[in-house]
Amino acid sequence: MDFTLLLDILGVIAFSISGVLTSLRKRMDAFGILIIAFVTSIGGGTIRDVLIGNQVMWMREMTYVYVIIVTAILAVIFRKKLSYLRKSLFLFDTLGIGLYTVVGVEKGISAGLPPIICVAIGTISACFGGVIRDILCNEIPEIFKKEIYATACILGGLSYFVMLKLNFPEGLIFLLSGLVVILVRLAAVIFKISLPTIYKKDENIEDYW
Amino acid sequence: MDFTLLLDILGVIAFSISGVLTSLRKRMDAFGILIIAFVTSIGGGTIRDVLIGNQVMWMREMTYVYVIIVTAILAVIFRKKLSYLRKSLFLFDTLGIGLYTVVGVEKGISAGLPPIICVAIGTISACFGGVIRDILCNEIPEIFKKEIYATACILGGLSYFVMLKLNFPEGLIFLLSGLVVILVRLAAVIFKISLPTIYKKDENIEDYW
Amino acid sequence: MDFTLLLDILGVIAFSISGVLTSLRKRMDAFGILIIAFVTSIGGGTIRDVLIGNQVMWMREMTYVYVIIVTAILAVIFRKKLSYLRKSLFLFDTLGIGLYTVVGVEKGISAGLPPIICVAIGTISACFGGVIRDILCNEIPEIFKKEIYATACILGGLSYFVMLKLNFPEGLIFLLSGLVVILVRLAAVIFKISLPTIYKKDENIEDYW
Repeated sequence: MDFTLLLDILGVIAFSISGVLTSLRKRMDAFGILIIAFVTSIGGGTIRDVLIGNQVMWMREMTYVYVIIVTAILAVIFRKKLSYLRKSLFLFDTLGIGLYTVVGVEKGISAGLPPIICVAIGTISACFGGVIRDILCNEIPEIFKKEIYATACILGGLSYFVMLKLNFPEGLIFLLSGLVVILVRLAAVIFKISLPTIYKKDENIEDYW
Repeated sequence: MDFTLLLDILGVIAFSISGVLTSLRKRMDAFGILIIAFVTSIGGGTIRDVLIGNQVMWMREMTYVYVIIVTAILAVIFRKKLSYLRKSLFLFDTLGIGLYTVVGVEKGISAGLPPIICVAIGTISACFGGVIRDILCNEIPEIFKKEIYATACILGGLSYFVMLKLNFPEGLIFLLSGLVVILVRLAAVIFKISLPTIYKKDENIEDYW
Repeated sequence: MDFTLLLDILGVIAFSISGVLTSLRKRMDAFGILIIAFVTSIGGGTIRDVLIGNQVMWMREMTYVYVIIVTAILAVIFRKKLSYLRKSLFLFDTLGIGLYTVVGVEKGISAGLPPIICVAIGTISACFGGVIRDILCNEIPEIFKKEIYATACILGGLSYFVMLKLNFPEGLIFLLSGLVVILVRLAAVIFKISLPTIYKKDENIEDYW
């Protein structure tokens, strides 16, 4: 349990800092930065809980709020140094989406939802904080254009149900399916793998339409 | 019942394809295209269900998910040919908003909401999938700038309550108010009717402010 | 009670007109203008109610709907004259956010949420109508870039809990914490106070990254 909490906090820290960086680029004021940090960290979980009909998680659990506020303040103060943390931040972020995917899948299962929907819920939990961040900053959400990010979550979620079918023990499924997300994402970035493009060179959909 | 399901599926197909087209224009990757197709198809119904406090419809009913995935894949593969389907797509889309408006109105009535609110819920069900699609693609929502689209839904919703007042039988109200949406929309596009502009030539609100 | 209702209606009027002005700038059609007026007025309260899990307030209380529709129509017709109302609109808007903040805080308390979360809920109630307005109009939300707006709400919300701790009578807390929001906002605009910028001259976050 403590181990999960640690991963969760590392994930929240990484997500908050990514929010701070995006909002600094848009020259937002102190309040705007805090809101974007907040929304990036808890947006995915909030949509998950509203869709399922659960109590929204950050409303009772103050740890998130404190971690986000402290992270945002420190990130703004030490913003010149953040690039030294680039690799750690990437690692925390990756741990975070691994954890959030699996937690999302399990909340879907608890609500009695079908497997594909649980995978969707897990992916939304992990990815939609960043989507809201980009919408608020008036950009096309990054995950729709770049990198194996959501794909890692989907693969992790699917592996959860494969292992469930094979009667793996619960704790192991949690661990291994989280690892699938993390390894796919690490491999994608390290080996510069991306989804095969569906566009031909110079192809323009307007030409057909 | 089967007839309603058929209309529903035609609507979902039309909405998915419109999502695919918008996301292809933005050169999104395969995952982004799927998400936009999904959100265009089920976004309006999701907002409706969250506002009313119902269980979100696509979480238990897998038909939507399968239809959207298959449609999105086929639409990407055959994207060069989609323009041949232009008229069919327009027709499916129009059938879809007719159906969604009436279903939305009836869900509002079941929840005991006042008539104007039910009309608003019906319109939201039919239109807000497209609104979310445009926000995610970083554009001003199309329905705020173009065409009699939402207006058709509002008129259909109002006609529902007029017929209810006149004690029409339930099935007939369902059918006729859906037809109002469809005919208003068809007439608007065929005869190029749009809302009368409220702007004078070269008028600029900044001039008064 | 009647006094609160009056403030509420003045706030809704100010919010609707700000929605009309933004949508006129984007040259939206009549329907788009109405939707933006609506969303600006009731967006914050809707997010508040969905997050807490309450019945969404405007679905049962028709006063809002009527006030918004009439205001939007009048604002469009008399749009050339709106600049004469500039000061009144600013005052109504300020009264509105004062009221919405305190009402939001109290709804949070009724739901048994911790104080910081209640302050967040109050701020969201007052500010997020404008955020949704700006997202739908494809702009970076104004409150993230300008003025002491959300900060006034946060200070008002905090003062609520300070007075609660000091055992002030309930009605007085309601009044005084609303006043804190209003006075901070008025002072900020009259004396041109803004949050101290966190950016150095010509600073660009990309330079560090």
